[in-house]
Order: sequence, then C-alpha cells, then structure tokens
Amino acid sequence: MIHYKEIAKIMGGLLMLLTVLMLPGIAFSFYFNSGDQRALISAALASLTIGGLLFFSFSKQDQNIRKREGYLIVSLSWLFMSIFGMLPYVLMDNPMSISDAVFETISGLTTTGATTMVDIEIMPQGILFWRSMTQWIGGLGIIVLTVAIFPLLGIGGIELFVAESPGPTSDKLHPRIRETAKRLWLIYVGLTITVIVLYFLEGMTFFDAVNHGLTTMATGGFSTKNDSMAFYDSELIQYTAIVFMFLAGTNFTITYFGLQGKWDRVWKSDEFRAYLFTLIILAVLLSVPIFVYGNHSVEQSFRNSLFQVVSLITTTGYITDDYTLYHPGVTLVFFMMLFLGASAGSTSGGIKFVRHLTFFKNSYLEFKRIVHPRAVIPLKINGDRVTGKIITHIMTFLLIYLMIFVFGSIIISIMGYDLITSFGAVATCLGNVGPAIGMVGPTDNFAFFDPLAKIFLSFLMLLGRLELFTVLVLFTPYFWRAN
Amino acid sequence: MIHYKEIAKIMGGLLMLLTVLMLPGIAFSFYFNSGDQRALISAALASLTIGGLLFFSFSKQDQNIRKREGYLIVSLSWLFMSIFGMLPYVLMDNPMSISDAVFETISGLTTTGATTMVDIEIMPQGILFWRSMTQWIGGLGIIVLTVAIFPLLGIGGIELFVAESPGPTSDKLHPRIRETAKRLWLIYVGLTITVIVLYFLEGMTFFDAVNHGLTTMATGGFSTKNDSMAFYDSELIQYTAIVFMFLAGTNFTITYFGLQGKWDRVWKSDEFRAYLFTLIILAVLLSVPIFVYGNHSVEQSFRNSLFQVVSLITTTGYITDDYTLYHPGVTLVFFMMLFLGASAGSTSGGIKFVRHLTFFKNSYLEFKRIVHPRAVIPLKINGDRVTGKIITHIMTFLLIYLMIFVFGSIIISIMGYDLITSFGAVATCLGNVGPAIGMVGPTDNFAFFDPLAKIFLSFLMLLGRLELFTVLVLFTPYFWRAN
Repeated sequence: MIHYKEIAKIMGGLLMLLTVLMLPGIAFSFYFNSGDQRALISAALASLTIGGLLFFSFSKQDQNIRKREGYLIVSLSWLFMSIFGMLPYVLMDNPMSISDAVFETISGLTTTGATTMVDIEIMPQGILFWRSMTQWIGGLGIIVLTVAIFPLLGIGGIELFVAESPGPTSDKLHPRIRETAKRLWLIYVGLTITVIVLYFLEGMTFFDAVNHGLTTMATGGFSTKNDSMAFYDSELIQYTAIVFMFLAGTNFTITYFGLQGKWDRVWKSDEFRAYLFTLIILAVLLSVPIFVYGNHSVEQSFRNSLFQVVSLITTTGYITDDYTLYHPGVTLVFFMMLFLGASAGSTSGGIKFVRHLTFFKNSYLEFKRIVHPRAVIPLKINGDRVTGKIITHIMTFLLIYLMIFVFGSIIISIMGYDLITSFGAVATCLGNVGPAIGMVGPTDNFAFFDPLAKIFLSFLMLLGRLELFTVLVLFTPYFWRAN
Repeated sequence: MIHYKEIAKIMGGLLMLLTVLMLPGIAFSFYFNSGDQRALISAALASLTIGGLLFFSFSKQDQNIRKREGYLIVSLSWLFMSIFGMLPYVLMDNPMSISDAVFETISGLTTTGATTMVDIEIMPQGILFWRSMTQWIGGLGIIVLTVAIFPLLGIGGIELFVAESPGPTSDKLHPRIRETAKRLWLIYVGLTITVIVLYFLEGMTFFDAVNHGLTTMATGGFSTKNDSMAFYDSELIQYTAIVFMFLAGTNFTITYFGLQGKWDRVWKSDEFRAYLFTLIILAVLLSVPIFVYGNHSVEQSFRNSLFQVVSLITTTGYITDDYTLYHPGVTLVFFMMLFLGASAGSTSGGIKFVRHLTFFKNSYLEFKRIVHPRAVIPLKINGDRVTGKIITHIMTFLLIYLMIFVFGSIIISIMGYDLITSFGAVATCLGNVGPAIGMVGPTDNFAFFDPLAKIFLSFLMLLGRLELFTVLVLFTPYFWRAN
C-alpha cells in the first residue's frame, strides 16, 4: 500500500517552498515595474493556496517513507513544481501557449536551458528572473536527490559513487545524510553568491549577474541575453563562467574536500580526474580547428573551445561561439558531448563520467576475461571494488539511455523534422544540455516545434534529469504490484 | 607460446581452397570471353603457389589449436583471403585502385555488399562472378565460425544461443561439431542451389541467377545489375528473394529443424520468433508511408516495404526501392535497421536479435530488481537461464559496438563528410549491410570516399563480421602476454 496522504503532505510543503522562491521574482518585477507583477503574484498565491491545503489537510502520519513512495515523490515533485512553475508564463500579458510554458518550465526545473523564447530581451524582468530561478531550484533539487534520495532508491548505480552515501542498506533518511545535504546546499548557495558578485564586479548589471549566477551554478544555461554569454566580450566574465560551470559540474562532495584543502581526497576520485582531463584534452584539440577555420586569435580560439566544451559537458548550455560553423568533424564531436554529462553528485545532467568510466574500465577488463576465462577479474573505481550487480545496472542504464535516444529521435522525425534536428533535439533534451545541432543549433531556439513535440521533449528532459529509472519504473507492473 | 607453424599451415590450406573457389569464375570468364581470364588465372596461381608453399613447408604438428591460436586464425583467415581475393580486381584491364580493391574484396568476404563500382554492368563477367563468390565464401566462413570456432573462443555471448554447441568446456574441436558443421554447409549449399534454380526459372539469365543466388544466401547483396533487384520488375523474383533472404538470416540449426518438420523446436526459439515478428511488424507499418508518399499500388507498397525491411535486417542490402525518398521518419527507421542484424548462426551480420533480446528482457527485469532489491531474478532465453557473466558480456558487446559506431563516425566526419553520410557509412559497414543514408543511400555507391576512408571502412566491416572481440582482443596486451 502506498501512503498517498504522506505524499500529498510532502507535495504541499514543496509548493509552499516554491511560493517562497517566487518572492524574489516578484521583488524584481516591482523594482523594474516590468508589468508582470499580477502574473507572478497570482502564481505565488495559487501555489500557496494549494500547497497549504495539501499540507494542512493531512496530519503527520509518522510513517517512514519507503522506496516505493520515494519513486512517486521524486516524479511528482518535478510534476507539481512544473505545473505551478509554469503559471507565471501563462498568466502574463502576451501569455505563452500551454506547450511553450510547459517546455520552458521543465527546461528550467531540469536545468536543461533549451528555450522557446525567440526574443529573450523583450521579456519582462520578473518573468526572466523566475525563469532563471526555476533552474536554480532544479539544481537544488538534484542535490537533494543524489545525496538523500537516490541512495535509498538504488537508482542508476551512481549512488554508490557519491561519497559519504550510506549505501542501500538503510531504509531511513539517515541523520548524517541531513548533515551532508545541508553542507552541500551551503556550498551551492555560497558558490552562487560568489559567482554573482564576480559577474557584477566584472561588469554585468546586478540583474544580469544574479540571473547568470543562478543558471551557472545550476548548470542550466538560461541567459537574459539573446546572444547568451557571447553578449559579453569580456574575457574575465567568460573565464569566470568557465570556472564556475566546472565547479557546478564537479561532485559537490569533492568540492567540499577541495575547500577543506584535502587535495588527496579530490585527486583520489577517478571520476574527477576523468572529468578534468577530458575537458582539457577536448578543449585543446578543438581549439585547433576553431583557430584554423575561424577568424579568431589563438587565445580566443582556445577560450571559445574551452568555453563550449565546459558548457556542453557540464550540460550548462551557454554559448559564446557557434560550433556548427567550422567543420563536420567539429560539429559531430560537439554533438557527441551531449552524451557525456559531468559528475555524479553535481547539478549537471546527462550520463555522467562515473558511468562512462565504469563502462570503459569494465570493457577493457572484459578482454582480460576472454583471455583468462576462469579467472575472477574485478572492476575497481576510486579504489573500491564494484559488484557485478552494479556493473550490470550501469550498463543497462547506458543502453536504455541510448535506446530512448533512438526511439525519441524516431518519434521527432516522424513529426516531420529532419534527422540531424531530431537527433540534436532529443540528445540535448535527454542530456539536459540546451543547445544542439541542426535546426536547434547554438544560435537557435525550440519555438518552431509542434506543441506535441514540445511536450514530448519536456518528458525526455524529465526522464534524463531523474536518471531514467525513477520515472520509468512507474510504468512497469512490478511497481504497482509490489507490496 | 603461439604455434605459428600450425597457423601458417592452416592459412596455406585456406589459400588452396580459395584457389578451387576461383575456378568457376575462370570458367565463366572463358565462356563469355570477357577479357578477364588472365587476371583470374594469375590470381588463382598466386593463391595456389603461396598456399602450397605455406601448407607443405610445415609438417602436421599434431598440436591442438588453443583459444589464442583461434583468435589469430580467425582474423588472419579473413586477412589472407582478402589479400589474395583482391588480386583479380587489381590485375584486370582497367584495374581498380588498391583501396577500391581492398574495399570491394572485404565488402565481399564480410558479406557486406557495399561497392565502389560506379557502373557494375560494364564489368567483365568473370570479375563479377568472383565478386559474388567472395560473398558466398564469406557466408560459408561465418557458418564455420559460429558453429565450430566461436563456441571455443567464447566470443560475443551468442555462442551459447547457437543450438547444439558444446559450450566452452571442451578445448578441442568436438567430432559432433564437425557433423553439425557439415550438415549446416549442406543446407547452405542446398538452399543456394534451390534459389539459383528458382531465379533462373523465374526469368533471370543463368549467369544472373547464379550470382544473385550466391549473394542471397550469403546475405551479401552484391548484384550484377546497377539497379540491384529493382531491375527485375517480377513479383515472383522479388518474393523469392524475400523468402531466401529470410532463410539466410535464420539460424541454420533452426532451418534444419524446420526441414525435419520439428516445428516445436523452431517455435521454441525466442530469437526466431523475435526475428519473424519484428520483420512482419516493421514491414506492415512501413508499407503505410510508402503507400501514402509513394506512387505505388497497395501490393507494391507492401512488397517494397517487406523487401527492404528483410533486405536490411538480414544485412543483405538488395534494393528495390529508395527508402530515403519518403519521409524523414521512414529514413530514420530504415537507418536504425542497420543496427539490428538477423539471427546468430546465420550468415547475417550486425548485432543480431539474440543480443537485442537479452538486452530488452534483462532491462525489463532490471526494474523488477529495483523494486525487489533482495530477490534473485534470473533471465531466461529459449527457456534456459542466462548467467550474469553472459549478460555482462552481451551488454559490453552492445556498448562497444555503439562506441565503435560513434568513434568511427567521428573519424569519417573529420575526413570531411557530412554527418548523415558519416553515420550511414559507418553503420552499414560495421553492420555488414551495404546501403545506408546520406551520400551512401540505396542508389549510391562508395566510390567517392577517400582511399583512407575506404581502408578504414573495410576495417570496420571486418570488425563487425568477426563479432568485434575476435579482432579487438589482438590489440590488447592481455592477449600477447598470456601463456
């Protein structure tokens, strides 16, 4: 039996929290008198009313949340936040269509950053701020998930690689987890404030600094400028963005060790090293064709290369340069980056390095197993042995991810879009990145898609953000039959 | 220590066998007086001389062939056959370039069917026949591999699903295996003769009937006509091709059971049912857009759909209709078929249904495992339990296959080809199919590629044909270090 009352109460609490997070947007909208005050206040009131009703109608049941409730809570949380988060978009003057609003909200909450806004700069400031805020909320949410929820649910195999998780043995939210979560939130908030201050000092307006700060740390990528980060031809701002995107894509526990000066523990992480070296190698390699085919200085070629590599791999999606203009090989390499994702335990989406690492290391060992069929050859990550069960689980994740990409691309192409656009849109939505290739290249937007395609792509963003299994398990009979 | 002398002797025997198989081509060339007599005879003599030298220089060592020799023998067999098989192409008047000859020969021996010939119909008949014969030899070779060699080597996981294999316990070529191999060759030869006779009775010239018969049963797809099977607007010929492509893509052991009337054993095979139903479903579904967007009758729409689905899934590659002309969704579905492959133990290449089936069934069970983390939930195929080791091995195969596709596409695109062409060429070569999308669509050929690209694509054909691991293991230190 699923404890629906308990779940309803949690959703109520979540909506009240959402109301609180809508307040700064209202403040901006009054400050700029941007004309969206009514929309934002109505949305906040609706959220508060329904949230309050849900929260106070059900008394605390004092029942532990079990795994099955866990799955429902995770999916429903993103669903409830999406429904109420889209209200400002549909209530403002010149409202968005429902499908656009759904897409924009889910793109925010999943920290994807794909947009249906053709002209961002004409949007009222309150709305723009709320848009950035949805990404920051999504980033916050994902930290809770990876630290506190996924370890309980055993989702995607990465929970074992996020340091300090208690493992799947305990069925209760461990007090130490609360401590860890609090610490990681503090880092998230602290880094957000730092990058906002830096952006401001480096020449952004306060409003733009806040917006970009929120969406940098969420690896979201929404910008208040039509030209995204290319608007700022300041090296300082672009390098700042690079550093903080990198940090946002780093496992927050690793960042915590770094802040404490425990560099040996940082360095011990196989995932961190793979993440760091991949970024450097790709940035250096790709700066060559960007220099050769582009019209840039050496420094700018390297900066543009580094910026786009970090932006895509961390699944942020800011743009300083159109990577589809140079050479088909460059385009394809950037397209493949949509499948990378940064670190587990960060705000980045996508597949993530720990899974790639598990696959690569295990594949290499598989050849050893072929040559020595009777030997037991274990896989180690971060010095720890990874069980066969986890390996199977991670490889299943990888294959299901690719299968969803394939079927998703087929569905989009059946709606009449060309192959490259279908591949690009599905890969970037599923990986929570933002820009892609084809008609959804770095300088394009998603406005032209069918309403149905927008809804479908929104679903893919949710699937990707919630590590597939969390959502998909709800569609299996096993989930509803279990007791 | 690797017994190189034993291996050399085997290569010698193989080359002498190759010489024998060159004889019918010489006969055709004299019959038609097609001007390629000198080229074919020289090739046969070179093959005979080197083969004889290798074979008779080394006395029988009476040592059992072990796994490590097995890997080398498999890769070297295809390499030696390729080197001597390409001689007719480079020795004829108007000779092919080396890269074209390599590509054409490996495309033959791997039963791929991609061609660099721009105008097939001007080629001398002896050469054309040899070209078809390389495919038939490749098909014969692959039957030996799956029945006798892969079970010993433990390659790709499929050896366990090919009925009557002795399993990896024995290290010797079991006498019963010889029996099985002989039986399957008889079926292969018998079906080839049958389809040749049918093609002839249905109106093909004797020469065309023989050529198409050889390449049908090999799931190769080389044709003597520029328009491939579209040349014959005879329903009978096309339906005959469909039936025999289907049979060639069926596990030959299953066909044997069918010939004996043991339908229960045929039906018990999960792979056969998956193969059959997938073909039917895809053919029916795709006949709808082909009818709507094409200019065909209902029957012709269905026939074209069925023909192309069977042709691509069995990795044959004959063409009756250009599937890229209708709708991007149709093109993408056909492109995805390049990743299917038919049955293990058939002459078809690609991933093959038993692996897809293992992945799909196991993924579904993975959700059950998530909901019931403490339960042991085994996977069954054909009623037999599949061990975790095999599941891991098959999923590793799938992921390495896709990884090679990704890196292969990047390499081709870096050479300057557009994304769709890169994807298409790599997918069709790795899957041993033939036609693809982009600039290598159903009515195109591979002539325009760089020599370097042709060599690289030939390597991919070999990789795919030999189930990846057989070749890749030679590039690991484990192989050379083992004792």
